[in-house]
Amino acid sequence: MAKRVAIVGAGVSGLASIKCCLEEGLEPTCFERSDDLGGLWRFTEHVEEGRASLYRSVVSNSCKEMSCYSDFPFPEDYPNYVPNSQFLEYLKMYANRFNLLKHIQFKTKVCSVTKCPDFTVTGQWEVVTQHEGKQGSDIFDAVMVCTGFLTDPYLPLDSFPGINTFKGQYFHSRQYKYPNIFKDKRVLVIGMGNSGTDIAVEASHLAEKVFLSTTGGAWVISRVFDSGYPWDMVFTTRFQNMFRNSLPTPIVNWLLARKMNSWFHHANYGLVPEDRFHSGPTWIRCTQATTEGTQLPTECHFSQDWHLLPGQGESPRMRKGREGGGRASHTGHRHISSLPMFLFRTQLREPVLNDELPGRIITGKVLIKPSIKEVKENSVVFNNTPKEEPIDIIVFATGYTFAFPFLDESVVKVENGQASLYKYIFPAHLPKPTLAVIGLIKPLGSIIPTGETQARWVVRVLKGINKLPPQSVMIEEVNARKENKPSGFGLCYCKALQADYITYIDELLTYINAKPNLFSMLLTDPRLGLTIFFGPSTPYQFRLTGPGKWEGARNAILTQWDRTFKVTKTRSVQESPSPFASLLKLLSLLALLMAIFLIFL
Amino acid sequence: MAKRVAIVGAGVSGLASIKCCLEEGLEPTCFERSDDLGGLWRFTEHVEEGRASLYRSVVSNSCKEMSCYSDFPFPEDYPNYVPNSQFLEYLKMYANRFNLLKHIQFKTKVCSVTKCPDFTVTGQWEVVTQHEGKQGSDIFDAVMVCTGFLTDPYLPLDSFPGINTFKGQYFHSRQYKYPNIFKDKRVLVIGMGNSGTDIAVEASHLAEKVFLSTTGGAWVISRVFDSGYPWDMVFTTRFQNMFRNSLPTPIVNWLLARKMNSWFHHANYGLVPEDRFHSGPTWIRCTQATTEGTQLPTECHFSQDWHLLPGQGESPRMRKGREGGGRASHTGHRHISSLPMFLFRTQLREPVLNDELPGRIITGKVLIKPSIKEVKENSVVFNNTPKEEPIDIIVFATGYTFAFPFLDESVVKVENGQASLYKYIFPAHLPKPTLAVIGLIKPLGSIIPTGETQARWVVRVLKGINKLPPQSVMIEEVNARKENKPSGFGLCYCKALQADYITYIDELLTYINAKPNLFSMLLTDPRLGLTIFFGPSTPYQFRLTGPGKWEGARNAILTQWDRTFKVTKTRSVQESPSPFASLLKLLSLLALLMAIFLIFL
Repeated sequence: MAKRVAIVGAGVSGLASIKCCLEEGLEPTCFERSDDLGGLWRFTEHVEEGRASLYRSVVSNSCKEMSCYSDFPFPEDYPNYVPNSQFLEYLKMYANRFNLLKHIQFKTKVCSVTKCPDFTVTGQWEVVTQHEGKQGSDIFDAVMVCTGFLTDPYLPLDSFPGINTFKGQYFHSRQYKYPNIFKDKRVLVIGMGNSGTDIAVEASHLAEKVFLSTTGGAWVISRVFDSGYPWDMVFTTRFQNMFRNSLPTPIVNWLLARKMNSWFHHANYGLVPEDRFHSGPTWIRCTQATTEGTQLPTECHFSQDWHLLPGQGESPRMRKGREGGGRASHTGHRHISSLPMFLFRTQLREPVLNDELPGRIITGKVLIKPSIKEVKENSVVFNNTPKEEPIDIIVFATGYTFAFPFLDESVVKVENGQASLYKYIFPAHLPKPTLAVIGLIKPLGSIIPTGETQARWVVRVLKGINKLPPQSVMIEEVNARKENKPSGFGLCYCKALQADYITYIDELLTYINAKPNLFSMLLTDPRLGLTIFFGPSTPYQFRLTGPGKWEGARNAILTQWDRTFKVTKTRSVQESPSPFASLLKLLSLLALLMAIFLIFL
Repeated sequence: MAKRVAIVGAGVSGLASIKCCLEEGLEPTCFERSDDLGGLWRFTEHVEEGRASLYRSVVSNSCKEMSCYSDFPFPEDYPNYVPNSQFLEYLKMYANRFNLLKHIQFKTKVCSVTKCPDFTVTGQWEVVTQHEGKQGSDIFDAVMVCTGFLTDPYLPLDSFPGINTFKGQYFHSRQYKYPNIFKDKRVLVIGMGNSGTDIAVEASHLAEKVFLSTTGGAWVISRVFDSGYPWDMVFTTRFQNMFRNSLPTPIVNWLLARKMNSWFHHANYGLVPEDRFHSGPTWIRCTQATTEGTQLPTECHFSQDWHLLPGQGESPRMRKGREGGGRASHTGHRHISSLPMFLFRTQLREPVLNDELPGRIITGKVLIKPSIKEVKENSVVFNNTPKEEPIDIIVFATGYTFAFPFLDESVVKVENGQASLYKYIFPAHLPKPTLAVIGLIKPLGSIIPTGETQARWVVRVLKGINKLPPQSVMIEEVNARKENKPSGFGLCYCKALQADYITYIDELLTYINAKPNLFSMLLTDPRLGLTIFFGPSTPYQFRLTGPGKWEGARNAILTQWDRTFKVTKTRSVQESPSPFASLLKLLSLLALLMAIFLIFL
């Protein structure tokens, strides 16, 4: 049985991992490269190597009731979508509440994690670290890797002919901190993920002109969803999940597109995803990640975004690469192969979250443009557009790559843009399940409860309470994902939308016997059962039962809407009933009385 | 017959007046106080005395197809909602196109406009002007006053107990230019009109904290309306107008409230208008004007907003003042009596236009607060709120007053907050109709075509082609408005929503025989007729027939949607038909064929 656990990284997943280890009686040691906890949520004025970098205005994409640790709700007075500084505060509260700090070694970089010589027997790892220039080494029974995937920028300059001649400024979105650099400039943002869209919108308040270039388009939704409810509290419910799962995919796609277009018709705003209907299914690569908290998958670029040069057409070699499931190594861009985490096979794309974009487009402050044909000295030419646009600054919001520099390739294999991880966690090829990757997943939901639930399962596997299936089964699962079978988790976007978040977490909860039993609950506690089924899938649901049960879970679920509106109802007035609504009520009552009267007549 | 016409002010209404005079063979002389045309639409870095002042980010509230001069569409490449700099460009194009510039005397302030001694016979006016320190005087046959109503700020400091002790900075929204003054400050914006809301939202991108204080709340709508169509192109149609007019007011109110709440539920965001249901009808004063182009009426403060001191309750004298139809002079605030243009009697308030507010509230960047109880040295206490909030800057977005300093009170009487103007134009008490006020109206629609249509009628009255009714009829109309009869124009908000803009303009068009005849059009040109009835009431409709007929009107109407989307479809992709939608179509076709088959069987 494992005892001593090394945890790499003290971000949201690292903190959850420490807590889970402590709860199961393990001895965690967390190595954090920087001098404080919080991972990507800790804003700094300057970009730090090896750590995700936020811009000042980042606000969470998933609301506070949906993105908290399952036994630790956000403070009541926090806004529904939490700005980064408050998010960091919350993480510090969490660390304090559960005494996690003393298990973290700050300013300690993990240089290598290698199997001990007797690994096949002990499953132990040698972890070599560096603290203020001094190297150290220690043996651990297990390792939990919580390094995230928003650290290494992906900057495919080769794919932008002429970029070397460009005399303006250009940089990756990771470098972006404040909008003032855009004052009176002509700005081009490339890539329409959450970061790219945020940056374009922010720039548009100051810049002379802002272009947002996207090859694939995107569905854009607002945090302010139906009737102003937080989008994820409306969208992520077990009822909706069941509804979406029970209908055929074309109908679901059609309904989703209708829903997406209800705020604004994407075609009229130049945002509708490209027509791939006539060219057969296309592999989409998810290369862009969100810096807003990793709660949402963001832009998926078609693989040819950066491979097909304008006017060139598609070479057979490229097509082969594309049709081969996005085997980017075939295209000559070896570095791409480590990028995408999911491959999607659908016309429907994941949504980008932005509250302002359509308003900025309709006022002419942001102009949506197709992909780039050529970059010139002081201008850019877009595909299918005759006019050359003068540009001063280019922001490459082209996403991130991920890598495990401290791990040997034999430990976590990254192939065709996918890590060979069973259930996105355990390297399938390892003879001993003593290494786990936490938080390397992009569900259409918050990554915080997702990573936390992963950690809850992992510690029980490390302790030997839970067993993994035979290696062959695990390898099969990983291969199935590689082959991009629509039945796999998160492989197909529509599937992801339909099932990913709730289904994935439910599966993990089943392993640890913590999945709430809705049927029995509807009998024993119908109010709670109905709230869980029809209401938002808030993380408290994952603490109602089983190991790690939290006594406050039931109450937290029943009061989730109170906390949601407490912070926006800062001026409350008594609403007057509309005379018409009152009349309707009165008429209904009369009809009811009449019906009763007639029945008893 | 009048010949020489003095026009005061070269803003949107002044320019239209010059053009209308020229078209009817009159000789206009326009006096413009500043050194350029454009009125409020000309942004300057510093506030200029006697001229409306914009902040840098102002964008029109009415879309380009709805807010252009009726025979001069905006250039095709202009965004749907036009930023102020482009709006000014447009006005300059208009002036150039119709050779208006040579009729404008810049840097010329009108000091006084007085009746000539033989006024009762000639109807002539003596206009005394000042140009670079030198006074001049001239006799004119008629005067058109186009000075607007957004020049004199209304700053009711008396109504904020403790404001004199406040150690922070405070100013009227008129002084506001750029958001950088708010950087890292705790900001309070008082008043939730368009300006106040805009300023709060802008401040929230930089400030430490932003409070938006509103007594009455407001309905907030977005420029991006149903499915992303410009709000006024959806809302302002003859069909909707008829629909709203044909239903009883409670049902219309209920439907409108439902509509307003579909974007976000105002009660959940602390914005729902106060409950006035149980306290009987309340007179609301419209004291806040928009600087965004005067297209929209903005916040109506209840008269007690600034009269009822907190905790004081309502004195009988005040109540008398309020119940007497908002006779503000009764309350001891004499200056208020010149404020409101319309008085409304309803729970429903006019909408504020803002695309971002709910997004800023849900992310905690703007906090809605009730009215102010007390201002302290460095903080503010709100009514019904225990906590004292530290504040660094207070912005009074408390609206404007209007006055005609160059006119004697006997010419335009302002009483109970209403100018005694027949149809909002002609002073009812004048024996000769040779003075007209243009653009002193706030329809729920653009003021540009409204003012232009007023001018078209006015010049025909000045020429003697059109006659005004007997003085007694005019005085009756004005008095009816004063008595705030719900049947009057723009007196009742729901009425205003239902009919104001279209009905008012149609009435003016009827006077000059330029009202399109929908019934005959449906027979002779059904495509045009249907577009006019079901489509947006774009100003080109006012040029289809009669004097001032514009040949391009029909085509402009039929292409209005093309121009609308041309500027947002900057990346166009072919949309693939959804397989499900195709299936639906196929099934419908089969059903149709089957029906035909069965009929002929």
